[in-house]
Amino acid sequence: MSSALKVALVQGRDQGSVDANLGRIEQRVAEAAAAGARLVLLQELHNGAYFCQHQDVNEFDRAETIPGPSTERLSAMAAKHGLVLVASLFERRAAGLYHNTAVVFDADGRIAGRYRKMHIPDDPGFMEKFYFTPGDLGFEPVDTAVGRLGVLVCWDQWYPEAARLMALAGAEMLLYPTAIGWDPRDDQAEQQRQQQAWIISQRGHAVANGLPVLSCNRTGFEADPTGLGAGIQFWGHSFVAGPQGEFLASASSDQDELLLAEVDLRRSENVRRIWPFLRDRRIDAYGDLTRRFRTP
Amino acid sequence: MSSALKVALVQGRDQGSVDANLGRIEQRVAEAAAAGARLVLLQELHNGAYFCQHQDVNEFDRAETIPGPSTERLSAMAAKHGLVLVASLFERRAAGLYHNTAVVFDADGRIAGRYRKMHIPDDPGFMEKFYFTPGDLGFEPVDTAVGRLGVLVCWDQWYPEAARLMALAGAEMLLYPTAIGWDPRDDQAEQQRQQQAWIISQRGHAVANGLPVLSCNRTGFEADPTGLGAGIQFWGHSFVAGPQGEFLASASSDQDELLLAEVDLRRSENVRRIWPFLRDRRIDAYGDLTRRFRTP
Repeated sequence: MSSALKVALVQGRDQGSVDANLGRIEQRVAEAAAAGARLVLLQELHNGAYFCQHQDVNEFDRAETIPGPSTERLSAMAAKHGLVLVASLFERRAAGLYHNTAVVFDADGRIAGRYRKMHIPDDPGFMEKFYFTPGDLGFEPVDTAVGRLGVLVCWDQWYPEAARLMALAGAEMLLYPTAIGWDPRDDQAEQQRQQQAWIISQRGHAVANGLPVLSCNRTGFEADPTGLGAGIQFWGHSFVAGPQGEFLASASSDQDELLLAEVDLRRSENVRRIWPFLRDRRIDAYGDLTRRFRTP
Repeated sequence: MSSALKVALVQGRDQGSVDANLGRIEQRVAEAAAAGARLVLLQELHNGAYFCQHQDVNEFDRAETIPGPSTERLSAMAAKHGLVLVASLFERRAAGLYHNTAVVFDADGRIAGRYRKMHIPDDPGFMEKFYFTPGDLGFEPVDTAVGRLGVLVCWDQWYPEAARLMALAGAEMLLYPTAIGWDPRDDQAEQQRQQQAWIISQRGHAVANGLPVLSCNRTGFEADPTGLGAGIQFWGHSFVAGPQGEFLASASSDQDELLLAEVDLRRSENVRRIWPFLRDRRIDAYGDLTRRFRTP
């Protein structure tokens, strides 16, 4: 395996139906393959609208089993082009038991592994605790033809613990399918601070762990189905960072884009030699990280 | 206590002797007080040259006890101006037992607490493991007249664990006395990546914990005393970030500067309401953070 890995991120707006979204993804994956990509990352819940703006029991109809019809179609894309594909689905595990799940397809189309979103947000516009049971598979990377992938999902990207646990388990890259955007009522300064914080947080994980980070976010405006909220302007800006947090590629805030980048996996080795953070972790003094808070 | 807090960072080059360095600091603290600062942060090992470029037993002569002559002089500055002062000293604890220690003086001049650097680096130009025993006081913030301060030192700034443990202990700000710089032999692209990574890492701690971060770094060139290395060009760029990682103030890379900023402590409350990361930490799944690595 060469150390240079071409990767592709599919950033886009909701196409209105599962079929239309998967159709668009098929097209993008074909383009990515033609450009030489061997790893494709999709955005969070790419099969439809970001439905968590409201709490509606009918939205559970969007969920499917894994494996299921969507994984079949996604699996075929990976196999057809011989590339690793990281997808993000609303998983129905049982009646009343649903997860926000990333699925990793290996280059032969088989499901190499899955990751169930561990940190679940819940705030106005992002009412995910209604829909998603917190993941119970832990922070386990998935082995694939292009390396060991530390796949995490959206809200996880704010947690250094998640990134670190993936790195400690030997992940060679961190990947984040995401759906995050602006409340149109916030002023521009606040919007900029939020977007920058989101970028900084993930570039920070790259630095702390000496690993490349791939983050794929949706774009476009989606109205609040209840009409009560102002909707969400998803802020795009999917990006790829190297193991010093340096930008390798970044997308616009408002366009459907196939973002291509070349990741040099040797750089992690070299960066970790000059900045051997893993060597000096004070594991004897980290016990309180498993506490909710350290004061009464 | 008002929520607006004027803070000051003293960035500078080595003045050649303990007396000259403390004299310069006295002047800067007076300027900071005149500007209304109630908290002053000094750079790492501000009493002299950054002596860790080589391993020389004579350098232990620089160390002093705490309390000792330098803390007396620093204490007088804090008391005279009625401000909180965060200093950084080479601590002699016993024969053959030395630490890199931050000392926090309260606004009445008393020593409010100390922090012994927990993560100790060791790489060409920064041979700290020869001089500094790793801290044994843990990650404990210090209560002062301006709030509970999470003081960490330099290499700690690359560790999200350290910042998180301070936040979980109720720290209201994170403070980093620092001495970091460039190897003049690195090309400009590498130098820029390193400086940006350093900034990103610490702004990332601000974001992850919803806390302001103050980082005070030295500037100026210091030659390698052995003549073998190329020396270190300390990269300055001391800065203050708010709880979304936003820059509140930042200094140049190459000038002696008194950097002033106003920190609004109410913003942490507000930012943590919209981004309640502490609410959703998966403490049930973080146990492996105390392991060296998660694979054999």
